[in-house]
Amino acid sequence: MAFKDKIIMKPIGYVRTTAVGDEVKDRTRTSEIVIGSEFTEALDGVAGFSHLFVLFWLNKISSSQRKIMKVHPRGRKDMPLLGVFATRSNLRPNPIGLTLVELVKTEGNVLTVRGLDAFDGTPVLDMKPFDLWDIGKKARMPDWWLKLQKEKEDERSATA
Amino acid sequence: MAFKDKIIMKPIGYVRTTAVGDEVKDRTRTSEIVIGSEFTEALDGVAGFSHLFVLFWLNKISSSQRKIMKVHPRGRKDMPLLGVFATRSNLRPNPIGLTLVELVKTEGNVLTVRGLDAFDGTPVLDMKPFDLWDIGKKARMPDWWLKLQKEKEDERSATA
Repeated sequence: MAFKDKIIMKPIGYVRTTAVGDEVKDRTRTSEIVIGSEFTEALDGVAGFSHLFVLFWLNKISSSQRKIMKVHPRGRKDMPLLGVFATRSNLRPNPIGLTLVELVKTEGNVLTVRGLDAFDGTPVLDMKPFDLWDIGKKARMPDWWLKLQKEKEDERSATA
Repeated sequence: MAFKDKIIMKPIGYVRTTAVGDEVKDRTRTSEIVIGSEFTEALDGVAGFSHLFVLFWLNKISSSQRKIMKVHPRGRKDMPLLGVFATRSNLRPNPIGLTLVELVKTEGNVLTVRGLDAFDGTPVLDMKPFDLWDIGKKARMPDWWLKLQKEKEDERSATA
């Protein structure tokens, strides 16, 4: 079927960060997005937004990892075994990362952002302004998700 | 540089809709996402969420359109000329669509969703549960954006 045709992308830039390992998950850290100089013009007006969606390519995920269909969220065995599309796992057929970041600064073709959970050198595919229209105001999540969310909030207030 | 390597993806499924032209922008319409049968297992648990991010490939965008760096939002000349990364325009180097949809129903490998602004046959790249953690609570947008948002809200209340 035509929809199965290969899709080819080229990165628009890459992530620059000194964070290693789990440090990239620290949402208070800043990192840089270095955009290819041919795209500098396409950044005009980005500074008007405080938040951006960053789409990036999880280039550490192997082709065999792209075939994994089920995971425990965050690898936790006390969580149910779920289809990857029900999770934000990095293991997915097309490992695209999607993170909402805070835009701290724009200088030429370099954006400083806060909260980007991507490793140094990660290829960036696209950036989009955060769209309030998109937000599901009455979103419903499963119990396992709410449990993880609560744990995360508790951690945050413990370290605040 | 290594980050400029080509990235190759294969669709996980496609959009099925009877909407044509501007009808796809009607957020009250439902459409279907038909997932490749090899990925059915990866849908387990998706039904626990009311909202999903859908990432799709805007396959009507030509290679010359992917080179456009600046646009007027929604093609409106009364709006400023902006870099594509400051807009949600379909014209971008990697034309990936990102829409938050309401999940209405899941049956086998077919998801019925509300609010997916994609044409019939559009390849789907990924789906992710809506993540409240991501939401920028104090997001700031530029004036042109707020103007468009207000117009949209006015339209909605006029048709409600």
